[in-house]
Amino acid sequence: MTERVVLAYSGGLDTSVAIPYLAEQTGAEVIAVAIDLGQGGEDLAAIRQRALDCGAAESEVVDAREEFAADYCLPAVRANALYMDRYPLVSALSRPLIVKHLVAAAKKYGGTIVSHGCTGKGNDQVRFEVGLGALAPDLKVIAPARDFAWTRDKAIAYAEEKGLPIDVTHKSPYSIDQNLWGRAVETGFLEDIWNPPIEDLYSYTADPAEQRDPDEIVITFDAGVPVAIDGETVTPYQAILELNRRAGAQGIGRLDMVEDRLVGIKSREVYEVPGAIALIIAHQELENVTVEREVARFKKGVDQRWAELVYDGLWFSPLKHALDAFVDDTQRYVSGEVRMVLHGGRAVVTGRRSEASLYDFGLATYDTGDTFDQSLAKGFVQLFGLPSRLAAARDARLGGSAQ
Amino acid sequence: MTERVVLAYSGGLDTSVAIPYLAEQTGAEVIAVAIDLGQGGEDLAAIRQRALDCGAAESEVVDAREEFAADYCLPAVRANALYMDRYPLVSALSRPLIVKHLVAAAKKYGGTIVSHGCTGKGNDQVRFEVGLGALAPDLKVIAPARDFAWTRDKAIAYAEEKGLPIDVTHKSPYSIDQNLWGRAVETGFLEDIWNPPIEDLYSYTADPAEQRDPDEIVITFDAGVPVAIDGETVTPYQAILELNRRAGAQGIGRLDMVEDRLVGIKSREVYEVPGAIALIIAHQELENVTVEREVARFKKGVDQRWAELVYDGLWFSPLKHALDAFVDDTQRYVSGEVRMVLHGGRAVVTGRRSEASLYDFGLATYDTGDTFDQSLAKGFVQLFGLPSRLAAARDARLGGSAQ
Amino acid sequence: MTERVVLAYSGGLDTSVAIPYLAEQTGAEVIAVAIDLGQGGEDLAAIRQRALDCGAAESEVVDAREEFAADYCLPAVRANALYMDRYPLVSALSRPLIVKHLVAAAKKYGGTIVSHGCTGKGNDQVRFEVGLGALAPDLKVIAPARDFAWTRDKAIAYAEEKGLPIDVTHKSPYSIDQNLWGRAVETGFLEDIWNPPIEDLYSYTADPAEQRDPDEIVITFDAGVPVAIDGETVTPYQAILELNRRAGAQGIGRLDMVEDRLVGIKSREVYEVPGAIALIIAHQELENVTVEREVARFKKGVDQRWAELVYDGLWFSPLKHALDAFVDDTQRYVSGEVRMVLHGGRAVVTGRRSEASLYDFGLATYDTGDTFDQSLAKGFVQLFGLPSRLAAARDARLGGSAQ
Amino acid sequence: MTERVVLAYSGGLDTSVAIPYLAEQTGAEVIAVAIDLGQGGEDLAAIRQRALDCGAAESEVVDAREEFAADYCLPAVRANALYMDRYPLVSALSRPLIVKHLVAAAKKYGGTIVSHGCTGKGNDQVRFEVGLGALAPDLKVIAPARDFAWTRDKAIAYAEEKGLPIDVTHKSPYSIDQNLWGRAVETGFLEDIWNPPIEDLYSYTADPAEQRDPDEIVITFDAGVPVAIDGETVTPYQAILELNRRAGAQGIGRLDMVEDRLVGIKSREVYEVPGAIALIIAHQELENVTVEREVARFKKGVDQRWAELVYDGLWFSPLKHALDAFVDDTQRYVSGEVRMVLHGGRAVVTGRRSEASLYDFGLATYDTGDTFDQSLAKGFVQLFGLPSRLAAARDARLGGSAQ
Repeated sequence: MTERVVLAYSGGLDTSVAIPYLAEQTGAEVIAVAIDLGQGGEDLAAIRQRALDCGAAESEVVDAREEFAADYCLPAVRANALYMDRYPLVSALSRPLIVKHLVAAAKKYGGTIVSHGCTGKGNDQVRFEVGLGALAPDLKVIAPARDFAWTRDKAIAYAEEKGLPIDVTHKSPYSIDQNLWGRAVETGFLEDIWNPPIEDLYSYTADPAEQRDPDEIVITFDAGVPVAIDGETVTPYQAILELNRRAGAQGIGRLDMVEDRLVGIKSREVYEVPGAIALIIAHQELENVTVEREVARFKKGVDQRWAELVYDGLWFSPLKHALDAFVDDTQRYVSGEVRMVLHGGRAVVTGRRSEASLYDFGLATYDTGDTFDQSLAKGFVQLFGLPSRLAAARDARLGGSAQ
Repeated sequence: MTERVVLAYSGGLDTSVAIPYLAEQTGAEVIAVAIDLGQGGEDLAAIRQRALDCGAAESEVVDAREEFAADYCLPAVRANALYMDRYPLVSALSRPLIVKHLVAAAKKYGGTIVSHGCTGKGNDQVRFEVGLGALAPDLKVIAPARDFAWTRDKAIAYAEEKGLPIDVTHKSPYSIDQNLWGRAVETGFLEDIWNPPIEDLYSYTADPAEQRDPDEIVITFDAGVPVAIDGETVTPYQAILELNRRAGAQGIGRLDMVEDRLVGIKSREVYEVPGAIALIIAHQELENVTVEREVARFKKGVDQRWAELVYDGLWFSPLKHALDAFVDDTQRYVSGEVRMVLHGGRAVVTGRRSEASLYDFGLATYDTGDTFDQSLAKGFVQLFGLPSRLAAARDARLGGSAQ
Repeated sequence: MTERVVLAYSGGLDTSVAIPYLAEQTGAEVIAVAIDLGQGGEDLAAIRQRALDCGAAESEVVDAREEFAADYCLPAVRANALYMDRYPLVSALSRPLIVKHLVAAAKKYGGTIVSHGCTGKGNDQVRFEVGLGALAPDLKVIAPARDFAWTRDKAIAYAEEKGLPIDVTHKSPYSIDQNLWGRAVETGFLEDIWNPPIEDLYSYTADPAEQRDPDEIVITFDAGVPVAIDGETVTPYQAILELNRRAGAQGIGRLDMVEDRLVGIKSREVYEVPGAIALIIAHQELENVTVEREVARFKKGVDQRWAELVYDGLWFSPLKHALDAFVDDTQRYVSGEVRMVLHGGRAVVTGRRSEASLYDFGLATYDTGDTFDQSLAKGFVQLFGLPSRLAAARDARLGGSAQ
Repeated sequence: MTERVVLAYSGGLDTSVAIPYLAEQTGAEVIAVAIDLGQGGEDLAAIRQRALDCGAAESEVVDAREEFAADYCLPAVRANALYMDRYPLVSALSRPLIVKHLVAAAKKYGGTIVSHGCTGKGNDQVRFEVGLGALAPDLKVIAPARDFAWTRDKAIAYAEEKGLPIDVTHKSPYSIDQNLWGRAVETGFLEDIWNPPIEDLYSYTADPAEQRDPDEIVITFDAGVPVAIDGETVTPYQAILELNRRAGAQGIGRLDMVEDRLVGIKSREVYEVPGAIALIIAHQELENVTVEREVARFKKGVDQRWAELVYDGLWFSPLKHALDAFVDDTQRYVSGEVRMVLHGGRAVVTGRRSEASLYDFGLATYDTGDTFDQSLAKGFVQLFGLPSRLAAARDARLGGSAQ
């Protein structure tokens, strides 16, 4: 029986060219699999057909939008996942889900090889291959761009030679990865990190500096998950879609940063993540209200490690699994409503209310109704500060100083 | 000899009333010490005189603005100090410096007691008393508001009875603490955490929603410290002042959050911190460019603990000292320039350049000049993912799943 | 109706005296509750009767030995709980269970006050009262030793005056707390931290220096819990009892340390924890075999925090709950056998085997059967070291050094 | 000019064979450099001559024993460096120092290539090459065992063919790495992790089970560094040598563990580290006495990361440098004396005293002289437990439970 290669197919030049090329190089049949993660753009039926026209033996489109929202994006909200305190992991969240569907397709179509379009200097190759190693260690992997030193010019020449049905004349200056959770843009002039981004880079967000009216929104969370917007029940996918629309219209979620790649280099990235940023800001403030102090302090380290692991391609790793157990436990009472104003590039929380609130008006107020017993404070202050005081006295005794 | 009480004096009702009251209660002479931390407002000579008019034996005003900027605010920048990822520690940074000057005054004037105006349910009593315990464990402490259950109404009645030269008719609805690093506002209606803040609360920042032109600024850092703005050399105090002015004019740095107090309760706080936020954002991005990945990842935990310690009143603690040693070491190469656009409530980095940059164009570029050897990636990916792959195979073998 | 005080009763002088004293001071009836945590010593029926003889309205003995072993000691094994890397939390583990049963007794007998014998400078008062605050915030607490400045001499005088049926002539020089998990001893001469412990202090362990034959033992774990010893199925209580016996006979688990108390002071403690130490050593090594590297590295921080929280009296806290979720997840595959030699004060692992092992002979061996592909190493080494190399080059360029 | 290869030379079969082989393969001259790290064994002059006899162009022996002790082993003591809580980093500490001297030799002799004998599945290749990348990124590296798939049989055949002056008949069953800080042994039968070690493996330590008299020792530390033993001033090298002798004679420091290698596999290792273990135990206890609680708690995470970094070959990394700054700061007051009994495989602290002690007899004692104000405890307990109590009340209100 002929061997089969399952190819992660995007419909673009590189993966289209890969269809005949992989067949040629391996003697195998190529199964093209395109995954709908809410990336929008071209019609998926057309993409499916193009793969066949390029010579794929089978071509399949998987609608994974609700799955992506529920099982990949929302866990990121619960972990306030911001790599380097900024980036909500757009590509990093999508790769494990793509891997999952590639593995399913390999099983369905009898594939023994998996192929992806990543280069050898990015993070995505790691995410693909570590994910594949975890889910299906027996599958072989071919990455033409990396393993055959494939370049764009080579791809164009090959497409023309083979007469592939791809428009090679249109050359976008941008390298883009986008999905429901956001959009990443790379392009030559940004590689000089002193150059500012230009308006033309953006597509998910309007210019934040434009005049427009503010948009007030109320998000309802249940156990750390958004379940309603302005009182209307939403699925995870709908929640993110709606937030993308409304936060994007206000120019929220543009990022421009120098970031540490897993392969050891620093790169400059521009992202648009309107819904992700708005959701995480709302979620963080609801945690401020409903999560106990020591949990909140420890969870910061857990959240950081969660984001690093996912960024580093370790979605299917045991540590990610155990951190999820921690995070899940902390979210039991992260339920309630957060009111935000979306405006001028900013998502600003203006109110929060929750049955599960740990904010206690009686303890907090300075007015009538104060129930805090101030006489307890003196003992607390004395014993809380005792280790510090003893150390300072020691330092002074030995001729040092407390500072 | 008559005992002497050194009082942290603000010029306001509570500490003015405390002068005769402390004298009465303790039989001691009261030494009023006001510290200029850039809080603006009333003339300090007038404040000094008011203390004398209220019966202080001595009254002194200390100009600590440059010291506050250099030794308290800038270390916070180097540690990206944001309590709960938000709050740049306005009051928390000032208390240890006030303590230091109170201790100096106690030595100068022969004081044996120190007095401050804090209540028993806030953080500041802890910061004062733990600081005093560290620097001068022999000094006694009296906090009239807490220890004598002193209230505003009691204070007014007492002021009128004694004929103190204080205007008690003007009753601001706000309780405010402000200094060079920012401004904190509390007021009754904010104690309902669903209520939004109103424009009237703000004084350091203009309304971010107003139309105005953007302001581009270039900040030069040397070893983590801002040393020039738009090419002009500045002292730490000047840097913060200028950033407050320009970022404040753009409505940057308004915060509204529910926060975990050290005394165990949650409280709702509104802050204005234009310069602090702008400086920290710029500093973080320069770290992204100049700090190695593993240092950056570990430093997040150090930065978090630094902010918690300072928030919790442990400025003069041995752990704070040791964390400073860590932070100092990481800042040796955090030098270079960051360009930001200040506009509409947002401080957005648009460029960065540094002699000490770890961003390597040759390794990062996808264009001509690429020096990254992609053939190394395969081995890296395989061994990096090996533990995960072995664990997934084990889980599958035992009937579990990788997810 | 007469108010009722539920007293944590040990049968000793202090809590016996507390029965009439509490009745006198509060006008309430006293309900004495003694909890059997495997502390051994006096017959519990005798203790129960003594409380009645001292005037208790009700007296109850609760056998909580299996519950203590299963729900308190074994979670400590799974978290390798060693406070300050040494102390397996003997008293700290018992207090929350005592609190649980006091609360149950208060409900059963209509108690509104709870009383315990702790002083104001130890950790146990915190563990009792924070636990009570969590489980039954409405109960009032009285701690005679602390709240009425009760001393031993006062207690003896009071006992004699009231003719209580307690032998006050026997004065042990030791203050002891012991249960199934171990034994803590304090005594005057150890307060000079230069003084060595003497053999007379010990009761759970034989002198390790004595000549005797080694004892080989095989412990079987299932999901982090010991389920068999030398092939015989055991309950948690039996497992600990057996390990105490056999490890104790070999002098294992004596500790002598200076420790940081929660109330801010350092104290010197001597412990005997034979079974605890043997079990934790075995469990750690089984984790080495079955837990993936990144989980293991992160879990160290979780284990440390778990031990600190429990030491600090926060057993019933949300963070403890969330850490348990993390730990539970990591223990799914900590199953297998560990062989140890118990001898001369040392518990030494000499073999381990597990169906869930991540140790892969093929990858590890340097002999025939080696399946490790060494050609992958070069790429790994290069990219793994890249950030460090770039930083060193930068430092050299700017005149610094890599060290 | 002929190119020159600087070879890390041990005198053994593999690196002896490498001399003519490297010359053959590269056409370069070979400079053999042997580093004395206190590994004992063969006379270094003989080793030096053997390299020349095998064809080395130059041969040099470097006495780095004091440097190794002072600059590599003692920092490990200050960081209580135990990888996986057990292993004091014997090989890991030595590799960066060897790298440093190889780089110096390359400079001295005009070498452009460096060669080492590591395989591709161990940690040492990483330590060598990441270190070289940091100190001398321009040097090329050749690892014959890894890069030319060199095996022992191949080496023997080659040695015989070339008539090299090496005894190839003696085949030790053990693969050993040893130096002043300890000794690591690998051998075939240990690769079955159920097999126990045998007495024949050990060379630095006597059998702990043998009867002998205990040995009492007093170690004096100054700022975390041992400076005297039983009152006699010692250099760092002398301190470790003496501890190795005396702790080794008592069978202290034998380790048998499954360990996580950097290259992603688990391996089984047997170590002997008598001096290292004794010194670290003494140092930890002196820290317990002299280091403030919050420093101690945070330092555990720093110590863990320090050990991981050094294990992982990142000695010359910026994070290691910054952690050193933290550790140095914490050691300022780690001065004083620790008395230990060395006996039967155990190093047991029996006393500690220090001018810089934070142990306060007055606060700790329950006898006459007690200065602790117990009335402070109630307020402390209440506020310390408040967050927990509020969370428990919330959980109960919403139908959950505190546990």
